[in-house]
Amino acid sequence: MNASFDFLSQLATIVGERHVLTASDRIAGYLIDVRKAYEGQALCIVEPADTLEVSAVVALCSDHDVAITPIGGNTGLVGGGAVRSKKVADGNERPGIGLSLRRLDRIREISALDGTITVEAGCVLQKIQEAAAEADLYFPLSLSAEGSCQIGGNIATNAGGTAAVRYGVTRQLVLGLEVVLPSGKVIHGLKRLRKDNAGYDLKQLFIGSEGTLGIITAAVMRVMPAPKATATAMVALDSIPAALEVLRRMHAAFGERVTSAEITERAYMDLVLKQLKAARPAFPETPTWSLLLEVSDSRDGAELKEPLEETLASALEDGIASDVLIAQNEAQAESFWYLRHGVSEAIRHAGPNMSHDSSVPLERQGDYVLRTRERILERFPEATPLYVGHLGDGNMHLVVMFSPDRFIDRAAYSAVSSELDTIIDDVVVELDGSITAEHGIGLSYRSRLARTKAPAEIELMQGIKAVFDPRNIMNPGKLLPA
Amino acid sequence: MNASFDFLSQLATIVGERHVLTASDRIAGYLIDVRKAYEGQALCIVEPADTLEVSAVVALCSDHDVAITPIGGNTGLVGGGAVRSKKVADGNERPGIGLSLRRLDRIREISALDGTITVEAGCVLQKIQEAAAEADLYFPLSLSAEGSCQIGGNIATNAGGTAAVRYGVTRQLVLGLEVVLPSGKVIHGLKRLRKDNAGYDLKQLFIGSEGTLGIITAAVMRVMPAPKATATAMVALDSIPAALEVLRRMHAAFGERVTSAEITERAYMDLVLKQLKAARPAFPETPTWSLLLEVSDSRDGAELKEPLEETLASALEDGIASDVLIAQNEAQAESFWYLRHGVSEAIRHAGPNMSHDSSVPLERQGDYVLRTRERILERFPEATPLYVGHLGDGNMHLVVMFSPDRFIDRAAYSAVSSELDTIIDDVVVELDGSITAEHGIGLSYRSRLARTKAPAEIELMQGIKAVFDPRNIMNPGKLLPA
Repeated sequence: MNASFDFLSQLATIVGERHVLTASDRIAGYLIDVRKAYEGQALCIVEPADTLEVSAVVALCSDHDVAITPIGGNTGLVGGGAVRSKKVADGNERPGIGLSLRRLDRIREISALDGTITVEAGCVLQKIQEAAAEADLYFPLSLSAEGSCQIGGNIATNAGGTAAVRYGVTRQLVLGLEVVLPSGKVIHGLKRLRKDNAGYDLKQLFIGSEGTLGIITAAVMRVMPAPKATATAMVALDSIPAALEVLRRMHAAFGERVTSAEITERAYMDLVLKQLKAARPAFPETPTWSLLLEVSDSRDGAELKEPLEETLASALEDGIASDVLIAQNEAQAESFWYLRHGVSEAIRHAGPNMSHDSSVPLERQGDYVLRTRERILERFPEATPLYVGHLGDGNMHLVVMFSPDRFIDRAAYSAVSSELDTIIDDVVVELDGSITAEHGIGLSYRSRLARTKAPAEIELMQGIKAVFDPRNIMNPGKLLPA
Repeated sequence: MNASFDFLSQLATIVGERHVLTASDRIAGYLIDVRKAYEGQALCIVEPADTLEVSAVVALCSDHDVAITPIGGNTGLVGGGAVRSKKVADGNERPGIGLSLRRLDRIREISALDGTITVEAGCVLQKIQEAAAEADLYFPLSLSAEGSCQIGGNIATNAGGTAAVRYGVTRQLVLGLEVVLPSGKVIHGLKRLRKDNAGYDLKQLFIGSEGTLGIITAAVMRVMPAPKATATAMVALDSIPAALEVLRRMHAAFGERVTSAEITERAYMDLVLKQLKAARPAFPETPTWSLLLEVSDSRDGAELKEPLEETLASALEDGIASDVLIAQNEAQAESFWYLRHGVSEAIRHAGPNMSHDSSVPLERQGDYVLRTRERILERFPEATPLYVGHLGDGNMHLVVMFSPDRFIDRAAYSAVSSELDTIIDDVVVELDGSITAEHGIGLSYRSRLARTKAPAEIELMQGIKAVFDPRNIMNPGKLLPA
């Protein structure tokens, strides 16, 4: 206890006493994720104010062999931010600390000419979007949690979102990173460069490494010219192949201006309409698939609505689409988006469920749906598979829902969940896809990494981890298999 | 000799006798780079036919502790492909082999829907561009050496080129890689996925690692909708800040449709006009800076010329540009491009020179030019600094030219070259740039890596190298400091 007390007081010397949180009511919010799926246990939560303090805290933890879990907005879906202890030399578990980045929340610089925004890790995503918009620029990363997730977490998990079809995932938006290594040393990599071939590109390793290799404290991100014209449509379709043909025509007609292509299956759309009071159906009858399309252009007055109407009208004439709605105003566009953004909320109140985040090559998305649905219903006829996806990225979210009384306890739930994992992972592997397209590995997928990566790849990952974090203090127990 | 004979015969068993080249006239072309700056020395050159053979050759080399230098089109500018020996346990140098990828030259698959082309490492870049075009798609990587460089080399060096302002560098075009590790094991990573967050993204390490971590044997690359409309212009400007203002307006008006923004300084343009017979001046008098702009659109019949005229006319009216030419037809556009592509050819016959490949933040490019020119001329008043750059990427190529009789021998040349490196690197570091934007490190920049990367970063790179290549057989002596 004395050692631990001593450690806490040294932490307090670095960050100030009021930023070393130990009282259970003050740390509770840090120890539970948004889905309440993983509970963490921490010696304390520290809230450093800047990179120097992060560095000092990490160096102290390195000296004392104390595990650190970096905590952003706590919106991850796979338990990557759950604070864990680590096994130390004497075989005991030593409690870890949670390191919150929330006080590193400054926007350091915007350069319109360079098309960059330099931000600290604790900036909430929405704040960055707004800062870019104020400078008549556009930060394209957008996802449901944008009001609370932090950019450091977005980078550490290589977040995807709804505009990736046009702008790529987070990795494509990162130009430079400032990182505190597990030794406490700082990599000052906040370069505003588009091209830099001086040695291995280390920042690529931190992106998507879920806090296991170091703590991202700041980043240079790309910003784009602000869209000055937007057009939105909802398309009713009978099948995924039909949806893909519409997407192909959209790309041929609009090139990179295709900004979003989000698809929702009937059962999921019906659930949204049932659960969300403000939801209004787009079509009189819910189609098998509803495809939300958005195109945007940075040129003021660019004509998009008319070519969008033409492109989709021809899809209708050719029998590919069964119905088409072009948003006539912003309110109608928002009502389409409301249906898409409502999926997470809808599922929250609908009963026990297991969620999957697969990607497959675009042209295999139809197979993915057919095979998973068939095999799930064969094994669990009482289940309802719900599909919603980023069609343009081959990234399909599959939620398998059950009736509220299906499971008598957590163990029964886990047994089914684990069986479903195997069923769905098998399909993903058959179709040469990824079992975790954008959510990451965290705790949830840790034991399943070997289903999708070869032993040689996992060995290299473990070798990299050992190089960066030889004492294994940085978010131990996450991402890599035990 | 017997051991070496034995090794050669084992190589022949794998790839066939006629693909183990030892005769000096047959291997000469593999041992000298395009600029004749680095000569290699090899036990032999092997030309495997496929990934399996590459894997077997590498495993054999690993067993015998023989160094391997992967060889693509041999168009690199920093000696990364120069075959080298390695120091072995007894302190002696053991000759290495060159491994040519040229026979791995198949295009395995094109998927219009996925927007991907799957190619083997030995495919010449131009062949990939043509295959994409045949499928009404577009592969955007484009650089002077495209008629002979190979995609494996482009990926291993993270090539840039003239369309990076729109499509990014090679890294942004790679979706999946097949790689033979230094152990001979194969990573089968030819996934056609836009999103995959299953563990550390190992392929990012191979991109730009210059063959020091493994041999890329095939890749899944992104292809884009083919441009259906293009407009090209040449703009005369007095300064870099003026050019950047034009670029800013271009991005505001055209967004991602700005495909190229290449800038050439007067002395360099005059040299091109003097050296290349077919070159025709764009302007009656060569301006201080000539900016070549290209915009393109995938929509058939998209109107680009008129908005381009408008945007540039307003720059003229506002006194930012001093003259503007809009290409009236394809021939005129080609004549503009001829001036840009002619820079490498022009310099080849113009006298001894040293070439630099720096990048700085976009808005600091003017400072880069001012500071380098001033300091170079202060120290070497007899020198002629020539500038040509990818303005939209902050990537400026600086060639320092001297009169033909300036150096009495190679040593005198090297002494000046080394002094220039220091002068220019200092400016780059002051401006927070990169000393090697797109050419890589190879042999040329090896000793200078420490000028731009911190010791902690270089240590991590060395640690990564040791994890991937513990016997140090893969392109040893390149990229990392000794």
